[in-house]
Amino acid sequence: MRCVCLDEKDLEDLLRGYKQGSVTLQDALGMLKKLPYEDMGFAMVDHHRQLRQGFPEVIYAAGKTKEQIRDIMLSLYHDGQENIIATRAEPDVYAYMKEALPDVQYNTPARMLYVERNKTVPDASREVLVLAAGTSDLPVAEEARLTAHLMGNAVRSCYDVGVAGIHRLFAHMQDIERANVIIVTAGMEGALASVVGGLTPKPVIAVPTSVGYGASFHGLSALLAMLNSCASGVAVMNIDNGFGAGALASKINHMR
Amino acid sequence: MRCVCLDEKDLEDLLRGYKQGSVTLQDALGMLKKLPYEDMGFAMVDHHRQLRQGFPEVIYAAGKTKEQIRDIMLSLYHDGQENIIATRAEPDVYAYMKEALPDVQYNTPARMLYVERNKTVPDASREVLVLAAGTSDLPVAEEARLTAHLMGNAVRSCYDVGVAGIHRLFAHMQDIERANVIIVTAGMEGALASVVGGLTPKPVIAVPTSVGYGASFHGLSALLAMLNSCASGVAVMNIDNGFGAGALASKINHMR
Amino acid sequence: MRCVCLDEKDLEDLLRGYKQGSVTLQDALGMLKKLPYEDMGFAMVDHHRQLRQGFPEVIYAAGKTKEQIRDIMLSLYHDGQENIIATRAEPDVYAYMKEALPDVQYNTPARMLYVERNKTVPDASREVLVLAAGTSDLPVAEEARLTAHLMGNAVRSCYDVGVAGIHRLFAHMQDIERANVIIVTAGMEGALASVVGGLTPKPVIAVPTSVGYGASFHGLSALLAMLNSCASGVAVMNIDNGFGAGALASKINHMR
Amino acid sequence: MRCVCLDEKDLEDLLRGYKQGSVTLQDALGMLKKLPYEDMGFAMVDHHRQLRQGFPEVIYAAGKTKEQIRDIMLSLYHDGQENIIATRAEPDVYAYMKEALPDVQYNTPARMLYVERNKTVPDASREVLVLAAGTSDLPVAEEARLTAHLMGNAVRSCYDVGVAGIHRLFAHMQDIERANVIIVTAGMEGALASVVGGLTPKPVIAVPTSVGYGASFHGLSALLAMLNSCASGVAVMNIDNGFGAGALASKINHMR
Amino acid sequence: MRCVCLDEKDLEDLLRGYKQGSVTLQDALGMLKKLPYEDMGFAMVDHHRQLRQGFPEVIYAAGKTKEQIRDIMLSLYHDGQENIIATRAEPDVYAYMKEALPDVQYNTPARMLYVERNKTVPDASREVLVLAAGTSDLPVAEEARLTAHLMGNAVRSCYDVGVAGIHRLFAHMQDIERANVIIVTAGMEGALASVVGGLTPKPVIAVPTSVGYGASFHGLSALLAMLNSCASGVAVMNIDNGFGAGALASKINHMR
Amino acid sequence: MRCVCLDEKDLEDLLRGYKQGSVTLQDALGMLKKLPYEDMGFAMVDHHRQLRQGFPEVIYAAGKTKEQIRDIMLSLYHDGQENIIATRAEPDVYAYMKEALPDVQYNTPARMLYVERNKTVPDASREVLVLAAGTSDLPVAEEARLTAHLMGNAVRSCYDVGVAGIHRLFAHMQDIERANVIIVTAGMEGALASVVGGLTPKPVIAVPTSVGYGASFHGLSALLAMLNSCASGVAVMNIDNGFGAGALASKINHMR
Amino acid sequence: MRCVCLDEKDLEDLLRGYKQGSVTLQDALGMLKKLPYEDMGFAMVDHHRQLRQGFPEVIYAAGKTKEQIRDIMLSLYHDGQENIIATRAEPDVYAYMKEALPDVQYNTPARMLYVERNKTVPDASREVLVLAAGTSDLPVAEEARLTAHLMGNAVRSCYDVGVAGIHRLFAHMQDIERANVIIVTAGMEGALASVVGGLTPKPVIAVPTSVGYGASFHGLSALLAMLNSCASGVAVMNIDNGFGAGALASKINHMR
Amino acid sequence: MRCVCLDEKDLEDLLRGYKQGSVTLQDALGMLKKLPYEDMGFAMVDHHRQLRQGFPEVIYAAGKTKEQIRDIMLSLYHDGQENIIATRAEPDVYAYMKEALPDVQYNTPARMLYVERNKTVPDASREVLVLAAGTSDLPVAEEARLTAHLMGNAVRSCYDVGVAGIHRLFAHMQDIERANVIIVTAGMEGALASVVGGLTPKPVIAVPTSVGYGASFHGLSALLAMLNSCASGVAVMNIDNGFGAGALASKINHMR
Repeated sequence: MRCVCLDEKDLEDLLRGYKQGSVTLQDALGMLKKLPYEDMGFAMVDHHRQLRQGFPEVIYAAGKTKEQIRDIMLSLYHDGQENIIATRAEPDVYAYMKEALPDVQYNTPARMLYVERNKTVPDASREVLVLAAGTSDLPVAEEARLTAHLMGNAVRSCYDVGVAGIHRLFAHMQDIERANVIIVTAGMEGALASVVGGLTPKPVIAVPTSVGYGASFHGLSALLAMLNSCASGVAVMNIDNGFGAGALASKINHMR
Repeated sequence: MRCVCLDEKDLEDLLRGYKQGSVTLQDALGMLKKLPYEDMGFAMVDHHRQLRQGFPEVIYAAGKTKEQIRDIMLSLYHDGQENIIATRAEPDVYAYMKEALPDVQYNTPARMLYVERNKTVPDASREVLVLAAGTSDLPVAEEARLTAHLMGNAVRSCYDVGVAGIHRLFAHMQDIERANVIIVTAGMEGALASVVGGLTPKPVIAVPTSVGYGASFHGLSALLAMLNSCASGVAVMNIDNGFGAGALASKINHMR
Repeated sequence: MRCVCLDEKDLEDLLRGYKQGSVTLQDALGMLKKLPYEDMGFAMVDHHRQLRQGFPEVIYAAGKTKEQIRDIMLSLYHDGQENIIATRAEPDVYAYMKEALPDVQYNTPARMLYVERNKTVPDASREVLVLAAGTSDLPVAEEARLTAHLMGNAVRSCYDVGVAGIHRLFAHMQDIERANVIIVTAGMEGALASVVGGLTPKPVIAVPTSVGYGASFHGLSALLAMLNSCASGVAVMNIDNGFGAGALASKINHMR
Repeated sequence: MRCVCLDEKDLEDLLRGYKQGSVTLQDALGMLKKLPYEDMGFAMVDHHRQLRQGFPEVIYAAGKTKEQIRDIMLSLYHDGQENIIATRAEPDVYAYMKEALPDVQYNTPARMLYVERNKTVPDASREVLVLAAGTSDLPVAEEARLTAHLMGNAVRSCYDVGVAGIHRLFAHMQDIERANVIIVTAGMEGALASVVGGLTPKPVIAVPTSVGYGASFHGLSALLAMLNSCASGVAVMNIDNGFGAGALASKINHMR
Repeated sequence: MRCVCLDEKDLEDLLRGYKQGSVTLQDALGMLKKLPYEDMGFAMVDHHRQLRQGFPEVIYAAGKTKEQIRDIMLSLYHDGQENIIATRAEPDVYAYMKEALPDVQYNTPARMLYVERNKTVPDASREVLVLAAGTSDLPVAEEARLTAHLMGNAVRSCYDVGVAGIHRLFAHMQDIERANVIIVTAGMEGALASVVGGLTPKPVIAVPTSVGYGASFHGLSALLAMLNSCASGVAVMNIDNGFGAGALASKINHMR
Repeated sequence: MRCVCLDEKDLEDLLRGYKQGSVTLQDALGMLKKLPYEDMGFAMVDHHRQLRQGFPEVIYAAGKTKEQIRDIMLSLYHDGQENIIATRAEPDVYAYMKEALPDVQYNTPARMLYVERNKTVPDASREVLVLAAGTSDLPVAEEARLTAHLMGNAVRSCYDVGVAGIHRLFAHMQDIERANVIIVTAGMEGALASVVGGLTPKPVIAVPTSVGYGASFHGLSALLAMLNSCASGVAVMNIDNGFGAGALASKINHMR
Repeated sequence: MRCVCLDEKDLEDLLRGYKQGSVTLQDALGMLKKLPYEDMGFAMVDHHRQLRQGFPEVIYAAGKTKEQIRDIMLSLYHDGQENIIATRAEPDVYAYMKEALPDVQYNTPARMLYVERNKTVPDASREVLVLAAGTSDLPVAEEARLTAHLMGNAVRSCYDVGVAGIHRLFAHMQDIERANVIIVTAGMEGALASVVGGLTPKPVIAVPTSVGYGASFHGLSALLAMLNSCASGVAVMNIDNGFGAGALASKINHMR
Repeated sequence: MRCVCLDEKDLEDLLRGYKQGSVTLQDALGMLKKLPYEDMGFAMVDHHRQLRQGFPEVIYAAGKTKEQIRDIMLSLYHDGQENIIATRAEPDVYAYMKEALPDVQYNTPARMLYVERNKTVPDASREVLVLAAGTSDLPVAEEARLTAHLMGNAVRSCYDVGVAGIHRLFAHMQDIERANVIIVTAGMEGALASVVGGLTPKPVIAVPTSVGYGASFHGLSALLAMLNSCASGVAVMNIDNGFGAGALASKINHMR
């Protein structure tokens, strides 16, 4: 989909042309009547540009063919200078992509395909902390960590700090106190989000994972627990949505 | 329903009577053929007697009329010397019952009607600890506490020790270490059970409560969280089932 | 529950006392062994103090008696100079409270009881925007708005801007572009969160409301929709949790 | 199953025969007594005939053997002159079918097997518009599009116009305004149906898709959202039921 | 919320004014730059006008105060000549409204408040048929019937024609055959929609009702059944959404 | 709704009339063409008549006005000689009905209104046994018992025989062995159905009740348990559907 | 598990032995005290014997190894003269079994392994009718049909008679009227059970199948629909439980 | 993650060092300020030590690589003398592990990898009894049995004692009466837990299994049934959580 957009310059040209007679009233009217959507697009483009200062469009690889992923990735690669991300990409996509674009890298647990070329050093005083309750939550935590990293944040991660051995969490108390934004990934009972939420005044982004069995119901258990967190300031993402958490953490972390 | 039971003495009498001729083969056969159920009853009675060493039948008042509750309670009152419990009794039942049985007492938050007359001093070295995550969980916690108390246990309770302010829980670390069995009542995300389960080698009985709103879905959230506890040794009761938790804690606490 | 805390000064006194002999080795050891929890409490207090720079403890009035609410509120009133909030308070609590504390105010749709006495002018350049899809979502939106306001934020609100008449939303495009953090409250299909999430690079906090009937299942429909938002950067709160959204928005908005 | 049907002509013959004596009272009675079901069949046939002016029976291939599908398809092929559709057919069925019936075609994403032989030009002024929120919704959208096309409608489709980038939708505003009936396919939060429903006075048929993960619960999230659409005039189909949407759109589009 | 809209005339005046010099380039640009949303509003107004040829805005009374309902209703009453509808209005709202607007009428089972003043005779050859499976489904059926009637359709209704006594339905076969659009309201197992869907080539709008008990789960049972209808061409509305069904039927019935 | 039905006699008259000339071909055709539905009705009437040998139409009082219930009941009273049943009738309906029809009786727990006038003695050798797990299941059990009784069956009932005290059930072993059909009503975990299903070769009709709290989810727990009964030959009714169980038991019990 | 059972003869021997002195009082007592369970077993055996007049134990093959299935089947084969059934057996089990027991047969769609050797001619006047709504419901219908057949019933089956083409059902009206018990298997919306329930005074056993997609939720949709059937006398089995339906139908059909 | 812990000895050394001047006030303060977490660790270690008297850390193999499992297992093997358990390990992990650690054993149905080297004879008078309702529940029962065995308990198991043939259960009455703690594993309707709970005064740990099909919903049916058990003293574990049941039973069984 492509929408032809008019920026302010085009608009000015149109008005001048009409005044000078090179554009008829009818043509000007016809064009301006269609403007809402084009201007809408215009506004979007502007918005996109600003967003893009942080990061360009991200590719959701699930349900796309190798060819489609390659084409979009190459297009992003040649059009800009930013880092590029494709989430939920299987290993065979990486093998295929590697040939077309040797710069591409792959994070196996996170199933993320990416090109890292923006070498701007992130603000080390504003750390995003990614916590994972168990080692099985690692794929989701890694997706969050890598996303935040590629979007220009200093990221620290502590895995296997679930509440059943709460001393493991407390050993990371300094990391928690230092963090600017905290992402908590946890499956099963998802209790880590509440405990961390009570230990910090900073925003906590909770990501329920589908880790568990039986009555975990593929992450429902952790999702409900996190939504009902008695700690205020805990926001919740979809089950296994590490990317979303990383992107939101980056948005918050870049606020000034 | 009443089932006529034969104890060992009856059985011996029957056999002797048959040998001596006072009981015919036909009568003995007829009686013995019915035995399974009567003996079944017999076994039950035996079992009941043993159980009753701890406690007699408990009245579930919900869905019973005032008159029914009174009749059962008076029957238990006159037949034994044990404490008596009726759970889920509304205040008006207490008013009604008080007239028929002045010894009766009422715990308002727990909605428990009871007669306490067994003055045996419980073993103070074997404490049941009842924890409540928030003050709203108090009715369920009180039901558990009072049940365990009336069943002959030393009980200690700490309320409002939820995980969002985990220092409140740690201030009770000694109580946790001292306890023989721990009951955890919590609504919302029910995380307290997992944290406590990780802090103690003793059995933890988790009772989800219907405290919360929205996605707590009347206790479902806490129930699922507790079932998925990553701490081993956590067993779960039905939502708001404080009585069951107290009774189970008492069973475990009396084991030797 | 009260936990006796030791701050750094106490710790120093203890050590000096021990060196000087006024504290025995045994006593010092006994005290320090208990320290984890007290220090934990200590850390918490520290943490609380920092949090409190924004706001002190908030009272969840649901399930508390009028007397309890009054006592906590008066205690907060006399102990500090900050604004005070009690959420989910029914009108009769307000009437009762008004007598004990004439400064108290009440927001009827939000069911919030509050004392506003911190007159610090919020940073007008950092606006929290509260959007409500329909007029029925207003109670939740108002809870969010008032919470953010009392926590020291400039807040703007636009109600009845649901997606079925999307021009109503676009008429507020400037508000959306100006906002630092956006709270979206919506029931039924909860689509507003996704649309707004696509229009802004700022964090969006989505609050599903229980508005609707039939297959809205008391807010489940909006909750699921928001969790599945195809716009990245949308975080979700519990159904009807306007307070949580306001508190989180305030945390994010105060980040620098 | 086959039911012998009597049309009006048969009925008249029967009556005349009876009057003239060639049919006995007994035989006439016997036949007329069975009539309800046969007439029922008769009504059905009539109904079928009318329906068939649009389209004959459609084959639901899922759960049928290759042989069964071939036999039904060949029977329809030789009995009429209309287009033929088999939905949810896997690629290997196509290979098998192609040998038996070289005219058969296959739409891979839609998994539809079809024979197109009715060359009637559809009414171009009455367009069915098929929208898909994302590229992953394409299989469902294609099933809807092809169904409507084969049933004799002018169909236009715009894919990847989801609400998270709403300018992409507005770029198709003219298509929306021109359309006579609109089919909206969307997974995840399914918000597109509400937005489109608010932009057009025409009927909107919403098809939730199973696209998404985690709390999308295989399309439940989009289904609930669409059922709760705040835009009036939005009707909902089963999850992934593109065929049903296409068939209903065709019914509505052929109304005069 | 009010959005200032420019119609084509305003646009022409603006352009002419600019050409003639009464509007500066800067002012014209400033105005046109804001156009998207205003034009958006403009497009909406246009759309609204067309929709309104059928019917103006409908008031959803649930969750609105009597005063709010009165004000909106009076505003609609004085601004136009069309019929007015307020859905889900309780009887006391009617009593209150009757004083302010004596023309107002009330349908008790449907809980609809309305003013009927458009005396245009509907096209009798294009009937909307409203079927109700049982007498308990009548409130929803009446809401659908009255909505379709007030929106200018000839409506016929047959109640208590559920499938458990299918002869009752067949006695209305002529009504079914004559109908242009059919609305089926049914609770419990909701089977009526499938049976009717198989009897007619016309669009069927199925409205599950919350009638039933136990495993009907407040309409979920009928909702799922209708979504899974094996008859093609059945579209489903939210549980108890009679209004939506009436409005959609009217849209379809007015198509030409 | 009333459907004019033609029985075989009418049909014969019609045919003879046509032969004799008193009925024209056109009239005969017109009549016969409508026959399907009238014959359908005819078949139904026949069916009804046979069913009625057991019992006439039963009134589902929920959602009907007092006047409607009275009118239907009086109509049934004056048209036949059979017993009459109205289920789910509140006590005030009884008071109202008693004036209009002094013969009417009321079963309070079952909320059944009935007239018993058929004095046929049921076959005592074919007993329907109604079991209730707890006293709270009594309303459902009574509805089942009274229904079966009024439909002409010898009925025996044993209440409070739940599996937690299985000796209580075994004391009724002879009743179980003697029964021809067994109805089991149970809430909570609904285990009684499986135990009884394993003890008898006769059909067991299981009725889950909404008795319980928390995770009983208003009968869902018992419903699922009964559907999953490992004993073969257990059929399940809707939650709390005592009437349906009684009616089905009667159908089975009358089979010969 | 094996339980040593005493039949009446053993009991008599024991008593006589004791009287004659060959059994001591102690031994007799010891034996009789254990009797409940053994007698329980005894009762069961008796019960089993009676049940077995119809059919012996049925093997649920799912989750059993080939060897286990073979051993049980051979044991049943050599111990009796009845038909033998193993349900949910995969084709490879058949191949394996065929070698060990050449008499074994296999019904592919029903996945049933069986030995048919009881040549008793069933009572042709008492037919079990098995209906299937669609061809995809055939596996479940076949399991029901074959079970009822092997248990000694005359069985008739009509497949593909779903309600969307209700004339197909009515063409089988005579089969329905003739049947003694009717089994209805249907997936999707499961409406067939209600329609058939309204057409017959005989017991209807409804089996929801997992046929469908999307909101059929693996048979939940049909299950709920059937539980809520507005036709009385419809009992419901677990999803896809064709065996249970066949066994129950056989129990009912053999009643006299 | 590793947390450096201070035991009492370290603390004493620190204090003495400070008094003697070898540790400065600043260093002592710095160290003690960090103590909460370290002490927390300390408390944990203590707790771990005690727990470890029974058993060391257990490895949850699901989601871990072969290498990770081997490393942890070897570390546990070389660090202690206790039995070692890894749950949910697939057979290929066993093959791999066997090479690295020849002492390792594997229980196929339970999917448990273990090293048994603690030869302490368990207290035979305190038996843990593991019951399984059906043979399909065996994997879960075996996991529970082996866990309890390896944790030092005398364990007895009776499988295939489900309630549909209750005499099979009663044949094990002596085992039930002798047991100190009872674990009940059951799928489908999970009724065994309630029956056993009514037969014993000892704690019953109920483990729902995912055995079943259709409306068992992967164990939900058994889970709900067990949570709603009318027998008091029944605690519930997550679906298929045999390990948790064995560990809890061991905790209870070791209480004195």
